[in-house]
Amino acid sequence: MNSEYIVEYSTIIQGENVKIFPFCVIGRPPMSPSGLTSIDYSKLENKPVIIGDNTIIGSHCVIYNNVKIGKNCLIGDHVRIREGVIIGDNCILGIGTKVGARTTIGNYTRIMDITNVASDAIIGDHVFIGPCVIMGNDNSMGRDVNFHIGKGPTLEDWSTIGMNATLLPGITIGKDSIVSAGAVVTRDVAPGVVVRGIPAKVDRLLKEGERRC
Amino acid sequence: MNSEYIVEYSTIIQGENVKIFPFCVIGRPPMSPSGLTSIDYSKLENKPVIIGDNTIIGSHCVIYNNVKIGKNCLIGDHVRIREGVIIGDNCILGIGTKVGARTTIGNYTRIMDITNVASDAIIGDHVFIGPCVIMGNDNSMGRDVNFHIGKGPTLEDWSTIGMNATLLPGITIGKDSIVSAGAVVTRDVAPGVVVRGIPAKVDRLLKEGERRC
Amino acid sequence: MNSEYIVEYSTIIQGENVKIFPFCVIGRPPMSPSGLTSIDYSKLENKPVIIGDNTIIGSHCVIYNNVKIGKNCLIGDHVRIREGVIIGDNCILGIGTKVGARTTIGNYTRIMDITNVASDAIIGDHVFIGPCVIMGNDNSMGRDVNFHIGKGPTLEDWSTIGMNATLLPGITIGKDSIVSAGAVVTRDVAPGVVVRGIPAKVDRLLKEGERRC
Repeated sequence: MNSEYIVEYSTIIQGENVKIFPFCVIGRPPMSPSGLTSIDYSKLENKPVIIGDNTIIGSHCVIYNNVKIGKNCLIGDHVRIREGVIIGDNCILGIGTKVGARTTIGNYTRIMDITNVASDAIIGDHVFIGPCVIMGNDNSMGRDVNFHIGKGPTLEDWSTIGMNATLLPGITIGKDSIVSAGAVVTRDVAPGVVVRGIPAKVDRLLKEGERRC
Repeated sequence: MNSEYIVEYSTIIQGENVKIFPFCVIGRPPMSPSGLTSIDYSKLENKPVIIGDNTIIGSHCVIYNNVKIGKNCLIGDHVRIREGVIIGDNCILGIGTKVGARTTIGNYTRIMDITNVASDAIIGDHVFIGPCVIMGNDNSMGRDVNFHIGKGPTLEDWSTIGMNATLLPGITIGKDSIVSAGAVVTRDVAPGVVVRGIPAKVDRLLKEGERRC
Repeated sequence: MNSEYIVEYSTIIQGENVKIFPFCVIGRPPMSPSGLTSIDYSKLENKPVIIGDNTIIGSHCVIYNNVKIGKNCLIGDHVRIREGVIIGDNCILGIGTKVGARTTIGNYTRIMDITNVASDAIIGDHVFIGPCVIMGNDNSMGRDVNFHIGKGPTLEDWSTIGMNATLLPGITIGKDSIVSAGAVVTRDVAPGVVVRGIPAKVDRLLKEGERRC
């Protein structure tokens, strides 16, 4: 069921009933001019892209090599998925979202449009990430190698991130917790709380009827 | 005047002197794996895309089916317009902007680059929306169906939204009002005022010479 | 080394070992319906695009005409570079970033993903700009021509901009200064300081070991 104008750079292993819209690049190898980044991309293997049954890939997507997307997922138009990413089943990635390298995403997780998921992030099951959420994976901002964490945030199961929230590198959002729209999260957030503000602080505990797990 | 590499999924009704740049997908049907979203996309009709005289569509755009774009509009590259959207005449949509499903936009409205216009929003005439503005249409963030509004913001005529502002679902920005850069608007804003901050509060009334209507 | 599906609208002058991924539009002329913007695009010359040795251009990029990109640069997928832009050597532009018209970028500067670089901005050498940074170039937000600056920010050498920061039009970020994540910068920032908050205020001076120049 693939459309015209698909460019494939590596083996694609497709389940049944997969649909890929036009102008997608699948299996793109990561590349960089020599010496520009700390990774020697020429040494990375060109591993296949695996796409599960019934998954739909929107138009203009770029899926790098060594990526696994589960069953029954909806990948929006213009989504960019970097090398080494693993996405579970029944997930939604909204239009224009980017998922950084080596990040893992669980099952039943929904990520809305134009969100920037960091590299080396760990995102659980049933997580909801609103539109235009921003995550980092480098605390030093390129200034100090000692400060470099090289680790994206961890979003535990059922956590919920409001739109335009900013999540600093390496922080953890606890199970079922809510980050309010526009918050800047600079420290770990415990499970079962609502945080808001810049920097984000605990506003209140989740009430009985608000808990989802 | 259409370019090469255009993929059309439904009837396109074009006015005179329309220009469409390469790698566009026009009339794309909304689709989702069965059961993944609450909408049964297989039941939606494939209605045409209507584009008015002199309108320019940039490259890599995705325009879903059942969309109407008026005359003399400039649609930037990489713009995504979902199903059921109606856009008036003399509008600008900046590069990389997304317009959610069923949203209506009036005449002479300008939306800058990489802005995320929610689904089910109502945007008036002469509205200005800066770059990277974020809007939501679901107050529950997927957690509680009772809290679900399913309604984007309403931006009344001549209202002005500063860059990187966040507009929560269902709120109204009154006529000619100004939302400052980076504000998070959580409640309705009266006409003729300037709001700022997180959450946004009224900073002052518009002065006589600042009013535009 | 160019891929298939590249559309060229002007002369491309390529150095050695340049790689361009599929679905790029190179040399795109700026266009607008007559009278919609204040610029008469029909009078602009169609000047070439110049790309230096070893530079890699990702897929789905749109590079307007009259653009110069230096040697050894990595331009990510889905990057949009407007007319008149000049980029130095050894730069990185992340996935989905946009660079506005006539902006200049120095050498060894890194701009992360989905960042919106304003038109008419001046960005120095060794600058780091995190993901999803937003800059403006019009203080009036289209409301008052007298307030119109038409000038993007100036980012001096070695300055560092945290993710999701907002930089208002015309402001200067001084040499080696740091803007924290989520800050909204409304005034000039002196060299060698850290600013944070909305509006951004000086938090502290850089310590001895933190200075980079």
